[in-house]
Amino acid sequence: MHILRVKTTTREQLVDITREVETRLARSGKSEGICTLFVQHTTAGLTINENADPDVSRDILAALRTLVPNNGMGFRHGEGNSDAHVKSSLVGPSLAIPFSNGRLALGTWQGIYLCEFDGPRDRKVVLSIG
Amino acid sequence: MHILRVKTTTREQLVDITREVETRLARSGKSEGICTLFVQHTTAGLTINENADPDVSRDILAALRTLVPNNGMGFRHGEGNSDAHVKSSLVGPSLAIPFSNGRLALGTWQGIYLCEFDGPRDRKVVLSIG
Amino acid sequence: MHILRVKTTTREQLVDITREVETRLARSGKSEGICTLFVQHTTAGLTINENADPDVSRDILAALRTLVPNNGMGFRHGEGNSDAHVKSSLVGPSLAIPFSNGRLALGTWQGIYLCEFDGPRDRKVVLSIG
Repeated sequence: MHILRVKTTTREQLVDITREVETRLARSGKSEGICTLFVQHTTAGLTINENADPDVSRDILAALRTLVPNNGMGFRHGEGNSDAHVKSSLVGPSLAIPFSNGRLALGTWQGIYLCEFDGPRDRKVVLSIG
Repeated sequence: MHILRVKTTTREQLVDITREVETRLARSGKSEGICTLFVQHTTAGLTINENADPDVSRDILAALRTLVPNNGMGFRHGEGNSDAHVKSSLVGPSLAIPFSNGRLALGTWQGIYLCEFDGPRDRKVVLSIG
Repeated sequence: MHILRVKTTTREQLVDITREVETRLARSGKSEGICTLFVQHTTAGLTINENADPDVSRDILAALRTLVPNNGMGFRHGEGNSDAHVKSSLVGPSLAIPFSNGRLALGTWQGIYLCEFDGPRDRKVVLSIG
């Protein structure tokens, strides 16, 4: 079990953590199995999406903001970040990614992203290689 | 493989099952690995979110209800619970949570929730400790 | 690690892959563990939902189309399929399904679906039995 630390810089952001995950996997020396990622926060999530055109990340955040605006849904939670909690549950906290020959079995255009919905903050992602 | 039984009491509800999962994990005697949870239903889901302020659960359910109302999206499924099926796919049926030293690696504010979208019902969650 | 190949025939489609997963599981000869599924694409996803009434699949796709229309959210990604990328992150790329006595521990009405959001295409799902 390893902890990846991710520093976000704005309220909403998709941070590509693929390289960090690949590096930890390589260090583990394991060849085949499942890499499990788990974010230890309730206003952030983990997703996999396109890593080529940065407009895809931008469009994902924009769509989520349209669906779940920061205000206007009658939220009661006093911290003013209920939208981030909702987005966190929509995207989800965990990913299971197979690996083979020591490499993640990602598709050509797939990158692994930490989804920040209430930053900037310091985030932790638990990485388990089994 | 263990089955957790969860009785829900209203149509839409987030039920905190963290303690039950921790108890089963402790009984297993295992120290490190992945706890996999899987809900055996198509109108319920599993999520992780804040366990401190109950308004967060309330706000999540309210936002989902606004996004996917019970009526008004032209649903055709005859049982009148298509909204619950959609929410179930948005939240997801499975979670993978790492554990270490016999304890779930949850963040400070994270609780594990069964999401009931078409209750009240008796629900089953499969818990696997590997 | 096995690759399931799924050919989709329309832009948006839920394809039931339960039988293929069960067949691979049976061939593996393994009795108890976790079956991990991972889709290698950024405009497709994996979900579990009702396998009895086909209107449920239809209603899920219709609701997602209402929430994230192909146009009208100010998307910038030039390929015109940002809606598919967003839906892919909402539904998610991976599933962890327990199995016991060589059978998936699915509930009575649960089927496993590849979610096509930008077809028709040839899709690949990585299946790991551990």
